[in-house]
Amino acid sequence: MKKKNVDLICDIAELISLAENGRDRKELLQKVVTSVAKHMLADVCSIYIYDEDDRQLTLRATQGLDEAAIGVVKLRLGEGITGRAVRELRPICVGTASQSASYKFFPGIHEEEYEAFLAVPILRGLRRIGALVVQARETNYFTSNDVKALRAIAAQLATMIENVQLLKEARDKAEAPVVPVAKKVTTASILRGRSASTGTARGTAYTLDSANSESCALPDPDAPPHSFEDFETAVGKTASQIEQLQRQTSEDLADVAVLIFSAHLLILEDEQFTGRIGNLIQTGTPALKAIATVVNEYVEVFSKSSMPLIREKVLDVKDLGNRLTRNLINEEAGECDYRSQIIIAHELLPSDILKLSAENVEGFIVSSGVTSHNAIICRSLGIPMVAISRELADGIPDGEELLMDAEQGIIYLRPGAEVYAKYRELDEAWKVMHNASDMKAKTKTKCGERVHIYANINLLSDLKPAREFKAEGVGLYRSEFPFIVRNDFPPEEEQYIIYKKLVEQMEGKPVTFRTLDIGGDKMLSYYSNVSEANPFLGMRAIRFSLQNRDIFCQQLRAFLRAGAGGGTRIMFPLISSVDDFVEARSIVYECMDELEEEGIPFSRDTQLGVMMELPSAVEVVDELAMEADFLSIGSNDLIQYMLAVDRTNEQVSKLYLAHHPAILRAINRIVSASETHGKDVSICGDLSADPRMLPFLLGVGLRRFSIDIVNALTVQRLVNSISLEEAEEMANAMLDFGRISEIEAYLIDCNLVDAAEA
Amino acid sequence: MKKKNVDLICDIAELISLAENGRDRKELLQKVVTSVAKHMLADVCSIYIYDEDDRQLTLRATQGLDEAAIGVVKLRLGEGITGRAVRELRPICVGTASQSASYKFFPGIHEEEYEAFLAVPILRGLRRIGALVVQARETNYFTSNDVKALRAIAAQLATMIENVQLLKEARDKAEAPVVPVAKKVTTASILRGRSASTGTARGTAYTLDSANSESCALPDPDAPPHSFEDFETAVGKTASQIEQLQRQTSEDLADVAVLIFSAHLLILEDEQFTGRIGNLIQTGTPALKAIATVVNEYVEVFSKSSMPLIREKVLDVKDLGNRLTRNLINEEAGECDYRSQIIIAHELLPSDILKLSAENVEGFIVSSGVTSHNAIICRSLGIPMVAISRELADGIPDGEELLMDAEQGIIYLRPGAEVYAKYRELDEAWKVMHNASDMKAKTKTKCGERVHIYANINLLSDLKPAREFKAEGVGLYRSEFPFIVRNDFPPEEEQYIIYKKLVEQMEGKPVTFRTLDIGGDKMLSYYSNVSEANPFLGMRAIRFSLQNRDIFCQQLRAFLRAGAGGGTRIMFPLISSVDDFVEARSIVYECMDELEEEGIPFSRDTQLGVMMELPSAVEVVDELAMEADFLSIGSNDLIQYMLAVDRTNEQVSKLYLAHHPAILRAINRIVSASETHGKDVSICGDLSADPRMLPFLLGVGLRRFSIDIVNALTVQRLVNSISLEEAEEMANAMLDFGRISEIEAYLIDCNLVDAAEA
Repeated sequence: MKKKNVDLICDIAELISLAENGRDRKELLQKVVTSVAKHMLADVCSIYIYDEDDRQLTLRATQGLDEAAIGVVKLRLGEGITGRAVRELRPICVGTASQSASYKFFPGIHEEEYEAFLAVPILRGLRRIGALVVQARETNYFTSNDVKALRAIAAQLATMIENVQLLKEARDKAEAPVVPVAKKVTTASILRGRSASTGTARGTAYTLDSANSESCALPDPDAPPHSFEDFETAVGKTASQIEQLQRQTSEDLADVAVLIFSAHLLILEDEQFTGRIGNLIQTGTPALKAIATVVNEYVEVFSKSSMPLIREKVLDVKDLGNRLTRNLINEEAGECDYRSQIIIAHELLPSDILKLSAENVEGFIVSSGVTSHNAIICRSLGIPMVAISRELADGIPDGEELLMDAEQGIIYLRPGAEVYAKYRELDEAWKVMHNASDMKAKTKTKCGERVHIYANINLLSDLKPAREFKAEGVGLYRSEFPFIVRNDFPPEEEQYIIYKKLVEQMEGKPVTFRTLDIGGDKMLSYYSNVSEANPFLGMRAIRFSLQNRDIFCQQLRAFLRAGAGGGTRIMFPLISSVDDFVEARSIVYECMDELEEEGIPFSRDTQLGVMMELPSAVEVVDELAMEADFLSIGSNDLIQYMLAVDRTNEQVSKLYLAHHPAILRAINRIVSASETHGKDVSICGDLSADPRMLPFLLGVGLRRFSIDIVNALTVQRLVNSISLEEAEEMANAMLDFGRISEIEAYLIDCNLVDAAEA
Repeated sequence: MKKKNVDLICDIAELISLAENGRDRKELLQKVVTSVAKHMLADVCSIYIYDEDDRQLTLRATQGLDEAAIGVVKLRLGEGITGRAVRELRPICVGTASQSASYKFFPGIHEEEYEAFLAVPILRGLRRIGALVVQARETNYFTSNDVKALRAIAAQLATMIENVQLLKEARDKAEAPVVPVAKKVTTASILRGRSASTGTARGTAYTLDSANSESCALPDPDAPPHSFEDFETAVGKTASQIEQLQRQTSEDLADVAVLIFSAHLLILEDEQFTGRIGNLIQTGTPALKAIATVVNEYVEVFSKSSMPLIREKVLDVKDLGNRLTRNLINEEAGECDYRSQIIIAHELLPSDILKLSAENVEGFIVSSGVTSHNAIICRSLGIPMVAISRELADGIPDGEELLMDAEQGIIYLRPGAEVYAKYRELDEAWKVMHNASDMKAKTKTKCGERVHIYANINLLSDLKPAREFKAEGVGLYRSEFPFIVRNDFPPEEEQYIIYKKLVEQMEGKPVTFRTLDIGGDKMLSYYSNVSEANPFLGMRAIRFSLQNRDIFCQQLRAFLRAGAGGGTRIMFPLISSVDDFVEARSIVYECMDELEEEGIPFSRDTQLGVMMELPSAVEVVDELAMEADFLSIGSNDLIQYMLAVDRTNEQVSKLYLAHHPAILRAINRIVSASETHGKDVSICGDLSADPRMLPFLLGVGLRRFSIDIVNALTVQRLVNSISLEEAEEMANAMLDFGRISEIEAYLIDCNLVDAAEA
């Protein structure tokens, strides 16, 4: 090492910066190797550049080796000393190369005369760019200082090489036409994703990708041509199919399915759409091609729109195209829908899910994150849904036979007979395990303590299973779905009709309404365009309601009116302080006064509660329990905020832990405060049906569980099997632990969790 | 009211859906009014559509009034009964219109014969779309049921009208060429924004907007032409200016300014850039035009690039263009930089701030959110920065004379003499208040209790003021800035040089290093492309370090080596559990063992601490205080996570409250646990220099404050003025309050906050 590091780095940096022609990488690299060889008094200096696609290093510049080798000598990742340095992302310094196990001999480039060998990977972050290599005749020539110096140079080089490449690519891109990327077909037979709903789905794959321009495929070209009259018949058939769908969903899903097919009809009757297809047919274009042309034009324009309201219509147009095509060539109405199909989509809207559900889809595979409202709607509708990576989703060819286990998040491609058989058995077993007739009206612990099971309700259609599974009431009505699926805030009157139905169908059992919980990942397409950097830390839930009093009051009035018969409660999500609750409560009182003045019936006794979801609320739980009529623990948000982990973010989702000691202690504080002040406390959210945590929850004193009703029988059976004494002992033990690892070990000891899982 | 609401709504919906020609809004609206008039047995039904630009309602369809009035009758917002209903966003029902104060008479349309008048606004969310009006001859004809029915119809109409318009706009847009929007010039003389740094700036406005294609303005067209040789001279001058800048910043900002001007040089020496300008000049293009042409081409291509690394270069290219132009026409080197200018930008990178700071910019106005690292760098460099809305920023014309009060977030346009005079006074007063020579070496309360003031250090350049203000050490070194500004992870050696300087310059005083706190809103451009939906709840700080052990170890080794002389400490940000801390600590021990084996000096006694920033950490603070050597309260994140409020989100920033009772109690818990276990506890973050909260912090037992050193004198004086007895009394009182409002009232009583502010 003959010069100080810093000097050498500066020289190289200067060299790079001042290279006469920034654009010519080859010349630049050559100058670098010449300069490095000179400064380090090395006999050889070479640069290899790595190609990610074929995972090979290619010699791109050398001082000391034969120049003819440039572009010719190639090393696989891990091959030779250089290949190993790049694979292992670390410098390798060898005193006597010929004796190294990794050494690779290339004939004709005269490398064999150099014994000292130092290879340093050129990295950009953790990405491989190439390698910088120096060699010398003298054995053991390079020192650890040389290693450091070469690393520093390699770091500078990485930036330079990338800058030059990026500048070039940007220029090339500005000139080159866009070439569509061919779909890479996966060869795997099992794909692993994340569960977003439950159940098993069987069907063929169908990709709903708006970026895919072949959205409307052409069937058999040899089929007989279709006349304009055939087309008109197909349009009529399509219109009546859609009207029928609209009628049916309006009946089945009265709360959310208001006019969800109206855009279909609007487009179908648009001169620019149907008229243009007709014109094309009349001027000689084959009917199927005419449909495909116009549909694809629409898809193209809509999918590029900056307006979400327009992009949403892509699915509608494609759906129309499919229906028109199928109605033209086929008699069977059933073939126009999505039965026997599993839809693969990058993104789905709640309204898409409702539409595709009405059209009998079997299941969904989504490749963007799953928003909580999509997961909730799918679960309510009983449609399996799995989230997988974009790359995996892109690998599933259309028409592929799939079996999807949404519970486990597993997708089988071309499943064999034994897979089908296994899932038939599992489905049968599941049905036996979840037979509503096995549900007892009252739930008790082994020692006879009464426990109450309530239902979480998302859609009115959830009420039927809730009754079947003998829910003792509604512990959480998520009121946002009628808001999310509509195109505007539903007026008081429309809300009242929905809430009233809910109360009526629960036949006098208690119903707890939660006020609007939008924001976070539940956005209203029609409300705000402000995109927040951290929506979960933004304008959501009660914050939105307090900010938008008119909307809040309309909902409160509708709740109060629906509860005129008594027995209903209202709770506020995301309360962060006593002040929030007091403000919300005073608005409820104002609404009560108004209703009284107007002579509209409601109940003054409506109880008002706080959802315990924020750390700051836990810290003032004593005062909240004093003010509120009841508390309800919203476990999903509570865990998320206590730990600062967005559980839908795959990078950190493993840090989302219900059994974190802080969560256990927070729950205990909430229950204790409720007891102190003699107030009701319940828990909703996924934790309330978690078999692993149920003993703890009973042990700290929880007796009211609001759950997704599909889990009712499991929870009831588990409660039956536990005595309070055991539960309290466990809870006390768990509250004493300060580490996650201790709690995991304890749960394993108690057989409440698999060793593998923890 | 002759039909049931629901029937009527369905009829209208059907009508809308089935309208024969979805594209023709006029015809559709006409069908609606006809149908509504029929169903409601009204004599007249009309639709007005609202135009946001001229704030007028225009009659667009009517049944019953003169058809010739369509498109002719116009109402201002608030004018007539209809205009009022739309302005006030509520239905207005009048029994005898002729007697209403709001009634407006239009001659010739025969409206006067109808006495009953019901106007309902058509709204989309809270946005005005128009009005639906029914009228009848009979007085008091419309009932409250009619009001409800018409509201429901109006809700359906809003969606339909918007759908039709959006579909049309999407089609139009796909066809129409893009027309650049003219800049609207503001007429206001004072703009209000948000403070992002401090200080006062004076200068002329200059917009750095990459979307602005006139990036390189043409000067006086009558100036004498420039020769190719003139251009070559200008290139040479530009190159040496930039090299000089590079050298200067490398000296002043050794830790962060590594080669920040290298892209400038790379582009300047690129044949495609300088060569092309030269060619254009040689083939007859005037030199200034040639520069503008090529610069604008580059700006165009770069700013549209999908690669952030390329988009970053827009500023460099524009800067080069300006320098070349000015060097061509002007002798003065000083005029090539940004002295006397206040830069307006939508977005700025940390490296942009460093570059523009080196080029003597006076201040920044940014119109996107301010990331915390930008705010921190500006404060360290002493550059005023204000964040304002995009709309306001767009209203400031280039060249406008500005005075910017970054402390208050106020921008004066064309400030008068009295404004200048006022700020001269304020600046003088500030200097007197912050005279380092007034700072005493030791800080004590009124009763003589010793309190320690440490400095928060972001850049090495902060060390000089830290010494001047007699900081007793570094309480928080934010180690991420060398990472953020570089183009790659700095290797151990480079980090070591920086950390070593830090330790040396603090001359034996204690130094607390915080390990890398990236993620959240502090992203590394070279690391990850994964964009998180909620980065503050994602992969950041210690989570990143534990996930990327190599990078973590390099930093830890550099810290340990720099601390070989003793007296340094290491703390981990965003610890969520004891498990996190134990894992991080075990990695430190491994690094220590490695260093020992390698014979490299370090200190075994380096203390290891936990940053208390997460609610879950507060909940297990007892166990953390037991394990760790010290605790440090990171108030900014602690408040953010406890309250679930992103303080950089303007929609909710008013909910970010340091005096929330939950925050006070959490701080108290942390300090108590530290005392119980005999561990050091300190506080860093903005709260530690908040005069309003200082008595509380002293009262709960905090004695160590790490602050932005500019506040040192203020904090010292405040501490001097308080006795512990007073402080403890206040703290106890504040801990008793359960509501924000009570605490605010108390702070007002204590004269610690303005009534207006609370």
